[in-house]
Amino acid sequence: MTDASRPDAHGTLSYEQSGVVYDLIDPLKVAAQRAAAATGANLAAHGFTEIVASRGESAYVVDVGPFHLASIVECLGSKALVADAMHELTGRSWYDAIAQDTIAMAINDLITVGATPLVVQAYWAAGGSDWFGDSQRAQALVAGWKAACDRCGVAWGGGETPALAGIVADGRIDLAASCTGIVNPKTRLSLGDKLGAGDAIVLLASSGIHANGLSLARKLVERLPQGYLTEIAPGLSYGAALLAPTVLYSPVTEALARSGIVPHYCANITGHGWRKLLRHPAALSYRIEAIPPVPAVLRFIQQHARQDNHEAYGTLNMGAGFALFVAADRAQACVEIARAQGVEAMVAGRVEAGPKRLVIEPLGLEYGSDELQLR
Amino acid sequence: MTDASRPDAHGTLSYEQSGVVYDLIDPLKVAAQRAAAATGANLAAHGFTEIVASRGESAYVVDVGPFHLASIVECLGSKALVADAMHELTGRSWYDAIAQDTIAMAINDLITVGATPLVVQAYWAAGGSDWFGDSQRAQALVAGWKAACDRCGVAWGGGETPALAGIVADGRIDLAASCTGIVNPKTRLSLGDKLGAGDAIVLLASSGIHANGLSLARKLVERLPQGYLTEIAPGLSYGAALLAPTVLYSPVTEALARSGIVPHYCANITGHGWRKLLRHPAALSYRIEAIPPVPAVLRFIQQHARQDNHEAYGTLNMGAGFALFVAADRAQACVEIARAQGVEAMVAGRVEAGPKRLVIEPLGLEYGSDELQLR
Repeated sequence: MTDASRPDAHGTLSYEQSGVVYDLIDPLKVAAQRAAAATGANLAAHGFTEIVASRGESAYVVDVGPFHLASIVECLGSKALVADAMHELTGRSWYDAIAQDTIAMAINDLITVGATPLVVQAYWAAGGSDWFGDSQRAQALVAGWKAACDRCGVAWGGGETPALAGIVADGRIDLAASCTGIVNPKTRLSLGDKLGAGDAIVLLASSGIHANGLSLARKLVERLPQGYLTEIAPGLSYGAALLAPTVLYSPVTEALARSGIVPHYCANITGHGWRKLLRHPAALSYRIEAIPPVPAVLRFIQQHARQDNHEAYGTLNMGAGFALFVAADRAQACVEIARAQGVEAMVAGRVEAGPKRLVIEPLGLEYGSDELQLR
Repeated sequence: MTDASRPDAHGTLSYEQSGVVYDLIDPLKVAAQRAAAATGANLAAHGFTEIVASRGESAYVVDVGPFHLASIVECLGSKALVADAMHELTGRSWYDAIAQDTIAMAINDLITVGATPLVVQAYWAAGGSDWFGDSQRAQALVAGWKAACDRCGVAWGGGETPALAGIVADGRIDLAASCTGIVNPKTRLSLGDKLGAGDAIVLLASSGIHANGLSLARKLVERLPQGYLTEIAPGLSYGAALLAPTVLYSPVTEALARSGIVPHYCANITGHGWRKLLRHPAALSYRIEAIPPVPAVLRFIQQHARQDNHEAYGTLNMGAGFALFVAADRAQACVEIARAQGVEAMVAGRVEAGPKRLVIEPLGLEYGSDELQLR
């Protein structure tokens, strides 16, 4: 056993070295998933049934008769710490962007099942009442939250703003969002056995790191003499680049629905990077023949963390924030519909019969089924 | 201006003295509520409308056609700190009870609008991966969560278990739950103008402090030489009494629905104690003629915090965890239905025409409309 918690100061920095130890979380997750699965039967008393295929997917789906109900709660993670550090360095609040990130975590997961997001609830747990006393920051959070809701066509239902001294660290905030939506008509459900060999893989562009891999990105700052203010491109600091808000993809999936295109499956590319393309439980191969440009901030992280492509594409989104698996003859239409919504897209590859694996041909990379354990 | 943060070590301990300063949170809340209200119009693009009367209520409601959709996210608050302290003192994990508390925070709010809860999502944000390494505690959390879901007939859809070092304090966990339900048939909606003079007030018993007032309860420990192990009744420590899990009230509201009883309004008695009986926006008077027994732990807190009845009933639930406002001729039936679900209940008073106020006759107390500002 190696000590994953002690990074080599000048060597490769892996995700576990940045402080998140999945081996400790995973047994709980397995127990929780097992217990949760056993509660699905409770819906029968109401005359409803769960969509079993949604267990282990990014959102939970229940058949409530006229349509399916989808719901989720998602955490921002540690990205707010970057905003706090940049506020100290520049005096500017980035919480408008942070708000969008938080909503994106929930919305981009909810839409993977084919749901239209309808209501978002805010969970803003501060380390003390005084967090809310910085009105510039608080107003930025409110404004960014509302703008993201408007962009996604959802109602902001309300939420919680507890002051949790002793639980949330002093001066910090724990941000999360819950989202409820419906799959309507039910044929929009993009789970189960729709996915098959011959489908095309359409990748939607990311804006940067989004809100996954931030523990690694923050750890890296220790290696940079100028820290977050290190220029990664002319006039663009590392910190500002990290804080580019996550793309909201629901305008694209809703536009697809209006055009009569139902993805066979979707993957929100978050933690585990492109390994998320292996998310569907079926034994299928995924062949990528073209890759999107890598955002400057991700290329910078890869270089300074000394990650090879296998590690970088297995950890970060590397320019692809969301994957649509669609009928091959609709792939180009998907690209055009996404672009019309302001989201760059490309037909990147295809699904093939074969063992579960992901092949990224332009980079000579391959990931097997043993490299993604989400269920 | 007085310094509310410095309690007199031997005098009355108010809620603000326990560390939560609402004046700092409230401007943000007002801004957030205003921005949230403006997003309700986004639902029109989907062909849906919000139930405007649900703005400012305990759960947000949307008319989605065949029924209403209700959703919410709720935080446990600081009760987990009591469990942590008691674990240190006794070696026992109370996280099964803490799990029920967390779910109760969401479920008991959701049902106030007349909704049947269907799906709960777990939000368990730990201060580091190692929180999950204590398997006894983690298993208690999972088991308690499942048991509460089973009791309420909801499906546990999934959730988030992030490790948030630097945001959540080391060794702590920030617990929250989101809940989605439906109001079905729509006539079950218990918001708006159904409430009127002549309605009866039925109070459902609490099990103790539930999960509100814990900042005060924890502050009080500093005054007790034996701290959480102080006996408040033979064989019952203060800490153990505080950790009695919150009553889950959805089995009662669902049983009422099966009996054809639709409350005209409901109030979940949480923060602000009995002032929550003033929650409905209408100008009506609430006259209480009989009060439930006060749980030993709440009587203990009142005495040691040297609160008079006005402060105690305006802060703590004092034995009443949930209020049903029902047609007078169904009030006794409500009591019997609640008891059949194992929840003690009583017809406590009635709604009258008159200015907005709450009169608790047996104690000679009165609260005016200026004593509850929730909207």
